[in-house]
Parts: sequence; structure tokens; C-alpha cells
Amino acid sequence: MSLNIYLSGEIHSDWREQIIKGAAGLDVSFSAPVTDHDASDDCGVALLGVEADKFWHDHKGAKLNAIRTRRAIGEADIVVVRFGEKYKQWNAAFDAGYAAALGKSIIVLNPPEHQHALKEVHAAALAVAETPAQVVGILRYVLTGALPG
Amino acid sequence: MSLNIYLSGEIHSDWREQIIKGAAGLDVSFSAPVTDHDASDDCGVALLGVEADKFWHDHKGAKLNAIRTRRAIGEADIVVVRFGEKYKQWNAAFDAGYAAALGKSIIVLNPPEHQHALKEVHAAALAVAETPAQVVGILRYVLTGALPG
Amino acid sequence: MSLNIYLSGEIHSDWREQIIKGAAGLDVSFSAPVTDHDASDDCGVALLGVEADKFWHDHKGAKLNAIRTRRAIGEADIVVVRFGEKYKQWNAAFDAGYAAALGKSIIVLNPPEHQHALKEVHAAALAVAETPAQVVGILRYVLTGALPG
Amino acid sequence: MSLNIYLSGEIHSDWREQIIKGAAGLDVSFSAPVTDHDASDDCGVALLGVEADKFWHDHKGAKLNAIRTRRAIGEADIVVVRFGEKYKQWNAAFDAGYAAALGKSIIVLNPPEHQHALKEVHAAALAVAETPAQVVGILRYVLTGALPG
Amino acid sequence: MSLNIYLSGEIHSDWREQIIKGAAGLDVSFSAPVTDHDASDDCGVALLGVEADKFWHDHKGAKLNAIRTRRAIGEADIVVVRFGEKYKQWNAAFDAGYAAALGKSIIVLNPPEHQHALKEVHAAALAVAETPAQVVGILRYVLTGALPG
Amino acid sequence: MSLNIYLSGEIHSDWREQIIKGAAGLDVSFSAPVTDHDASDDCGVALLGVEADKFWHDHKGAKLNAIRTRRAIGEADIVVVRFGEKYKQWNAAFDAGYAAALGKSIIVLNPPEHQHALKEVHAAALAVAETPAQVVGILRYVLTGALPG
Amino acid sequence: MSLNIYLSGEIHSDWREQIIKGAAGLDVSFSAPVTDHDASDDCGVALLGVEADKFWHDHKGAKLNAIRTRRAIGEADIVVVRFGEKYKQWNAAFDAGYAAALGKSIIVLNPPEHQHALKEVHAAALAVAETPAQVVGILRYVLTGALPG
Amino acid sequence: MSLNIYLSGEIHSDWREQIIKGAAGLDVSFSAPVTDHDASDDCGVALLGVEADKFWHDHKGAKLNAIRTRRAIGEADIVVVRFGEKYKQWNAAFDAGYAAALGKSIIVLNPPEHQHALKEVHAAALAVAETPAQVVGILRYVLTGALPG
Repeated sequence: MSLNIYLSGEIHSDWREQIIKGAAGLDVSFSAPVTDHDASDDCGVALLGVEADKFWHDHKGAKLNAIRTRRAIGEADIVVVRFGEKYKQWNAAFDAGYAAALGKSIIVLNPPEHQHALKEVHAAALAVAETPAQVVGILRYVLTGALPG
Repeated sequence: MSLNIYLSGEIHSDWREQIIKGAAGLDVSFSAPVTDHDASDDCGVALLGVEADKFWHDHKGAKLNAIRTRRAIGEADIVVVRFGEKYKQWNAAFDAGYAAALGKSIIVLNPPEHQHALKEVHAAALAVAETPAQVVGILRYVLTGALPG
Repeated sequence: MSLNIYLSGEIHSDWREQIIKGAAGLDVSFSAPVTDHDASDDCGVALLGVEADKFWHDHKGAKLNAIRTRRAIGEADIVVVRFGEKYKQWNAAFDAGYAAALGKSIIVLNPPEHQHALKEVHAAALAVAETPAQVVGILRYVLTGALPG
Repeated sequence: MSLNIYLSGEIHSDWREQIIKGAAGLDVSFSAPVTDHDASDDCGVALLGVEADKFWHDHKGAKLNAIRTRRAIGEADIVVVRFGEKYKQWNAAFDAGYAAALGKSIIVLNPPEHQHALKEVHAAALAVAETPAQVVGILRYVLTGALPG
Repeated sequence: MSLNIYLSGEIHSDWREQIIKGAAGLDVSFSAPVTDHDASDDCGVALLGVEADKFWHDHKGAKLNAIRTRRAIGEADIVVVRFGEKYKQWNAAFDAGYAAALGKSIIVLNPPEHQHALKEVHAAALAVAETPAQVVGILRYVLTGALPG
Repeated sequence: MSLNIYLSGEIHSDWREQIIKGAAGLDVSFSAPVTDHDASDDCGVALLGVEADKFWHDHKGAKLNAIRTRRAIGEADIVVVRFGEKYKQWNAAFDAGYAAALGKSIIVLNPPEHQHALKEVHAAALAVAETPAQVVGILRYVLTGALPG
Repeated sequence: MSLNIYLSGEIHSDWREQIIKGAAGLDVSFSAPVTDHDASDDCGVALLGVEADKFWHDHKGAKLNAIRTRRAIGEADIVVVRFGEKYKQWNAAFDAGYAAALGKSIIVLNPPEHQHALKEVHAAALAVAETPAQVVGILRYVLTGALPG
Repeated sequence: MSLNIYLSGEIHSDWREQIIKGAAGLDVSFSAPVTDHDASDDCGVALLGVEADKFWHDHKGAKLNAIRTRRAIGEADIVVVRFGEKYKQWNAAFDAGYAAALGKSIIVLNPPEHQHALKEVHAAALAVAETPAQVVGILRYVLTGALPG
């Protein structure tokens, strides 16, 4: 068994790198959104022409990013959704809902202070973790049956 | 043609009532989550027994609410997702993602200051409105072809 | 058995009225796009605010119309797609493709001079008719087994 | 992440070659309809016997071509639909509708003068481009996150 | 609970009438193909114009009949497929396969001498009956729990 | 909103009657398997002829019961699965798995001593109850938002 | 593009070998039912124990064969269904119906004298051929665009 | 043709090893749940933190195991469900129901004394075996057409 894993959500810390590094040696492949914040925001107008209106500037970009996101979630066995300390992060919650409706296995990764606000997302998840290391532990267990220690 | 409409999201203002009242006379039926905040938070333990741990307190409740939410979204032709001025509102974004993956028509209702943070949700929507009256106008147009004025 | 029928395509002649009138007495219900050409073109900006750019003017309107179209095709047992003598009518062909992928029964209604250009659409159809009266005949036969004369 | 891309529509210019050449080095695979116009028109009778009636001549061919088209769209992550300056091109719009109902990511490639006539197709697309180079830019961005310049 | 039942197959005996009459009083609704043999054979050319070639004469008719058949099987909870003593009856076996792939409950009704030739169809069925009265007994049991005697 | 509820599992106590009675006045409709134990065991041979071999005796009956069960679960919004104190009750667990794969909302009703053995079933459920009154409370809350007391 | 092709139906002539040989060099893979007639008939009792009753003898075997058939049709891009001169061949028609409901591309291969009896199967097919060489020609055209001579 | 096979159920005997060893040389790949009983029971708390309440201890573990199980069943062509002599084994019956709703081919492996209690599971299976060697025989036959002796 191999696992395709989509790493959704927060792009301001190195949680993806921690998981990918921790999972070295496991039969996994990872995908993620474009994590260059400026590129992600401006891709639409950079590729398809400027917009005077910020709404359409954002709209063109968000749709290009959706090509990547939907492909990656559609192929994923597991979607890890990371909520960081800051920002609205509605795109992360959107991805979680999208993944839930497709029947994907969801692991939510969030700091404990967000617990109450994330309860509907947690209700659709198969695991709720607080650290990248816990996510790595889950991947290892799911693939090999091995537990730490 | 009739329309089933699920009114998702913010529960602290009367936007649902405005839409329902405005749509009087149209062939529509509305559903919504439980909008009594305390009942929605505590239903799990009230019905199935107390929990010492807040996580499980919330978890039991969120799952009961999911029975209603998933039934309602599953039956909906249109999902209106309202983002208010305050709170995380990740459940609203989750519902939007869930509805998007099911191919539902999505109308987002949000104040303009949330535009950038909602761009991924907007990218999956068929309309972005700022007022309940605009949502009513859309429903009337979709059902009857009539435009205001 | 009853039939839901979506009448897609050309909006400049009375073919819909001919079919609906001809089918009087049969257990059928019809749906259609908004056939008021101006309303259909301008609904987006009329309901959700003006756009400086014609592309977004059209885009907002086309998405509102899609709420109606997708609901109606999704509920339809039969999609009748009418191609008239004039205009590009790409929306009609788009509806045909959309209906085909959903496994809907498709009846194409077109003048004979369009035969070659429509061969891919015809290949996905269960009937190709030249007159509204033929479509009525098909509906009557499918529901009652009765043939003319 | 790799991408399967179906290049649908116009067969009278070298837009496919431009995209394929431009995408050299990316993890993509392309498919397309049979672009030999005569072969595409006559395959049915060439392989399965002549028809006296032009309708059935075309019908047999269009069905054989559908074997290829449906397989390719079904496997595609992205469907690029090209509308050229001339001809009805209903098959392109049909492919777009078919792809939309399957939830494929759609990129429309058309000259600006077709904008209004394509608004329903654009409404279902995640990008609207005017040049093959823009399509290549999108593919590169989706796969690598890199933007030009 | 109510049941929609499609009565597929042989059209030369009164087995449908026996079942419908026997099921009087149960919460069932029945559908069936057009059982007028001549109408069923000739509907295509009667409604859409004559064909010189018998293949296309039959093809046009078979496609019109498919509008009815697919609608009825799609709505059915149970598909009863009757094989009579004579004829090829490939349409009946086709309907059985079509229903099986849709997950419909299948009841096969056939004389014992066809048992071996029908073993693949039987393998996909939830019941194999020899008389219309047995089918009625099954419908009554499924709806009410009552057994004869 | 109305709810279709399938009451699966144990047939030796009056838990179904308690739920149905408790839910009086709510917009619910209930379905259930045939709960006459002898009829359920013997329906196959009673309706379709005796079998010398107990395996086929059971097989014919189980398939007839499946006609009812699959129809009812397929139509259900909620599947309540009751595990009693005694017997293997593999059919109840089978129904739970079947419902889970269809995305149905599952409520498990079981005595506390079965908790560990049912943990995989619980993991797929949206609620775990110990009494029929709790199930009624859930149905009332889901439909009306009302909590006891 | 590659093609998976299931070769369904008649097992008394070498039509499969002709197609496989003719398609040498094309990017195709073929699957087929077990074509050893005795093994196919007796596999159930040979592997799982004898049955006194011919019905169950056949039933056990037909179900084992269904494991192979459904896997192969499920993976197929194209299902070729061959009807020979003799026998009932209801399994072939069943496979065609099964494939049709799954949206597979169907090629029917039959002698001309069966045309009328197969009209419902033909109506669901994308090609009707009379010789294995024609099927090979279709496969070559679909994959390469090349036509004979 | 190759086969993916999920080996569900009892973990206290070496039946999986017997099947895997017996199938050496066939084009098969096997998956299975974590069969280390303690790891399977305690994985949730070992990876994600202790729980005071046994219900949540079990719940966290069962959900982690579901990540593996659902992935494996989802990819399987065949699900072999083994019921041993002891224990409730509701997870095995749950897997069978889950697999049935997904249309997987099911082989049940159980001692004869469980026949009556498993009749509903058997009704959804394509084979019922008593020994691992019989399962191996089925796999060999399905892949190669070869029967023993």
C-alpha cells in the first residue's frame, strides 16, 4: 500500500517540510498548493492579463490555483489540513469540506486554541493532531502498523 | 421549477429571515442549521451524556449537527453561505467546500472587507452577494426570469 | 411514467411553445432557460452591480443563468437541444455535452443544413428531429406507445 | 503531480503543436482527437462500409471518434477547448459541456471576438486564454508554481 | 415503503397483466416497454422519416425505445426480467445487465428449460421465479412481510 | 425537512416501537426489515420452492430480504443500527457498513458492554446511543433544534 | 493513449485470437472471460464442492466467473461483444447492458442475420462490426488515426 | 489482469499467510488491516494522547485504523472476509457491507457452523469458502482459468 497525501492550508511555517522529512522512507507521495504567497495571489493577472478590479484580480488567480488543488485532492488518499495561529484560513476549511464530500480521509493539524472553532471540521476528520510529528506517526502506523517506542 | 436552498453560516444576525421574507411567494423551500447557539454547542452532551473533556463535548455535538447539515446540503439545489464580520466561521467555509464537491450551486454572502480572504470560496461560487436582498433578487431571477425595476 | 423535459437552445422562435402546446394532456413538465434575451445578458450586473469590463459583465450573468440551467438539466429525463439557423449557439452545444455526460436522453432539433456540423452532437443523441411536431410525437410515443395515424 | 491534458476543438491551426512544444520538460501528457479532417469525417464508412445517406455516413464516423474522445476526456485532468475564428465548432462546445459535467478543469482558448458568444462556456471554465503561450504558462504554473519573468 | 417495478422482456404473453392484477392493493407502481410489437419496431421511421436500410430503420426505433427503457429502469427499485420460450430476447438480457450495473434488485422469470443458458443472469439476480404468481408473492412479502398460507 | 429512517438490527425487543412511538408528531418516516423471525428465515423456500440444503434454503431467503433492505437503506437519511445483548448480529454490522459506504448518517444503539467490540462501527457513526429514548431525542433535535428539559 | 479492451461473448470460434493478432503493435491490452467451456461451467463445484441440484451447480460457477467478468469490464475502455451464429448467448447481451450502464464504449460484432434481434444492443453501441478485422481497424483508428489503404 | 485483494477479518490464525503463500506466482497484491492486536487497539492514544474514557480510547484508534481500511477496500478488486470461531467480529461484517455497497467482489471464508448467522453476508458474496486453500483456488481460476487436478 502506498499513500497520496495532500498537504492543505497554512503556508507561513515549515510544517510541510517537517512532515515530508519525517516520512522519509515511507511509501508516500505528497502534493501541496503553490506555497509562494505572492505567486499564488498574482498568478491570474501575471498569466492572463491585469485587472482593474481587485475582485477579479483575485478571482482569476484563485481559479488557476483551483486547477492544482482539485487535481491534488482528487488524487489524494489522505488530506492533511493545517490551521495556523493567524489569518482567516477559509481556504483550508473549504478544502476540508471538499475532501469530506469526496470521502477522503482527513487529518486536521491545529493548535489547541482553535479546537472549539474547528469542531465541525474535526467531526469530519479521522484524526486531529497538534504537531507535524504526530501526522508522521499516523502515516507510519497506517502504512506499517508500527507505533513509536 | 422549485428550489431547495440551504442557508449556511453566520447565526448572529437576521440575514436568514430577510431572505425568507423577501422570497415570499416564490417556489422555494429553505433549510438551515440549528441557529440556537447554545443548543448547537451542547446538543451532544445534552442528549448523549456529559463529557469531561471539552474536545469530546464539542465532538459529540458537531456530529449530531452534521446529521442535519449533510441531509440539508445533500437535498439543496443552492447553498447560500454567509460570512459575517466576526469569528472564524470555518464551518461556513467547510460547508462551501462540501457543497462544491457535490456540484451544488453556491452563492456567497459576505461583507466586502472579506473579499480577499474568501477568494478560493468565491472561485467555486456562481454568485457573490453583499446583501440578503441581492440573494433574494437572484432567487427571483432564477425562478421567474424577472429582474428588479 | 412522467417526464421532465429541459428545452435548451435557440430563443428567437416559438419552438418551445409549439412543443408545450403539442404535448398538452401528456404527463410531462417542461423547464427552460430564461428566454428574455436582454434579461439573460444583463442579469449579473442588474442584480450584483455594474462591471466596466464586458467580459465580467457577461461572466456574472452567465453564472447566474447556470444556476437555473444546471438545476433544470440535472432534474431532466430528456434534454431537447434546439439549434436555429443563426448565431454560434455554443451554449446549446455545451448543454448537450453536459447532458450527455450525465446520461440524459437527448433529442436534437435542427434544420437539415446543420447536419454535418452537428454530427458529434447527433452521435450522443437518441433522436434527431427537424420539427417541433416530431418532438411532440416522440414524447407521446415514449409515454403512451401511440404513433401518429 | 503530473497532468493529463486533452486538447479539444479547432484542427486548422498549429495551436496544439505550440502548446506541446511549449510544455516540453513539464510532467504532462497530451491527448487529442484525430486531427486529420478527412480521416475524421470518413472513418465510419472507411472501416464499416459505405452509406448512401450522408446523415449515417457522418453518424458512423462521429461514433467512432467518440470512442477516442470520451476515453481521452475521461482520463484528463485538464481539458483545453480551442475555438478558432471560423466554423460552427459545436463539437468543441459539446466537449466543454461534457468535461464540465465530469468536473474536469477547463481552459478555454479563443480569440477575443468570440467572448460574448462563449460566455456560458467561460462560466464553466477555470481559465480563459487568448494564446497557446498563455496555456503553457498556466500548465507550468500549476505544476511548478513558477510565473514568467 | 413503496416499490417501482420495471417489467422487462417478453411481450407475447400476459405475464405483465398477471403480475399487475395479482399485486392489486400493494403499494407498487409498474412500468414497462411499449408492448405493441409493430409500434415498437416501426416507431423510429413513423416519427422521424423512412429509412431505406433496415439497419437504420431498426436503429432509429431502438433509440426511441431506449428513452423509455432507461428512464424506467433508472427509476425502478426492482427490475423483473421475463424470458419466454421463444426468440433471442437479447434485449431482456441487455436490460438485466444494465439494471445489474445500476445496483437494481433483479427478479428473473423464466421457464426451467432456460436455466443453464441464463446462469450468468441468475447470478446477478436476487430471485429466480418460474411463474408470475411467484413474483407477486415476492412483491407482497417485500412490502408487507406476509407469506402465502 | 423530513427524515427517512431505517431501523436495522435486533428483532427480539420492542426498540423499534419505542422509537416510532416516541417520534410521534415529528416529520419522519420509518422503514425496517421483516421482523417476523420465521418469515424472514423461510421466505425463500416458501415463495420459490424448498431446498434440500440448508445453505440454499437460507440463501434464497436472505436474497429476498435484501430486496427490502437495500431499497430501504438506499432511501434512508439516517440508519439506526441496533445491537442487542445476544446473537451474532452480523447482519446489523453488515447494514452499518453498507450504509457507511453510501454516506448515510448512522446512529448506533447498543448496550455499553458491546462498546469495545463495536468500535469500528462506532467510528463510522454520527451518534452512539444506549436507549431508544436517546435516539428519539436526536431525531427531535435534528428536525426541530429542541433539546430536552 | 492506451486502451483496455474486454472481449465478451462467443467462445466457439477464434475471433479473439484474430483481434489480438491483428492488433499486434498497438498500445492495447485485452481481457476475456475464461474460454474453456468445461472449466467455466464446472468451476464452482470443482472449487467449492459438489451440488446435487443443477441450478446451484451453475450458480456457484456463474458467480465465480462474475469475479473475473466484472473486474475486466470495470477496467475496460472498450467492450467488444461478439454474438455467434448459435446458442442463446444471453451472457453476451448481459455484458453489453452492464457495460452500457457503466458508460463503456461498446463495439458489437455479429453476423448480419442477427441484426434485427440485436437492435437494442446496437442502439447502445458506438460501432457494429461484422468481422474481427473491422474491430482491429477501429482499434487502430482510435489509437493512431490511421485508416486502411 | 491483476487483482488487488483485501484480507479482512479474523487476526488470530494464519489464514492470511496461507492465502498469500498459496497464491505465490499469481499476479496478485494483498492488503490487510494492522494485525498486531495491541497496536490496533492502542494506536489512537499512542499517537495522539491518552484518553481517560475507554470509549474515546477506542474511538481514536478505530478512526486511525479506518484510514488504512478504507483505502485498502477502496482499491481492492476482491475483498475476502474471514470469520473465525470466536469473538463478535462485527468489524468483519462491517467491512463486508462496506465492500458490498462499493460493488466489490466478496469472498466469505467461514467455518460451517456460522452459516446461518452469516446468511445475509453470504447473500452479498460471489463465493463462500471454508478453507484458505479454496480461496487460493478461486484466485488462480479467476486469473488463469485453471482448475485443480
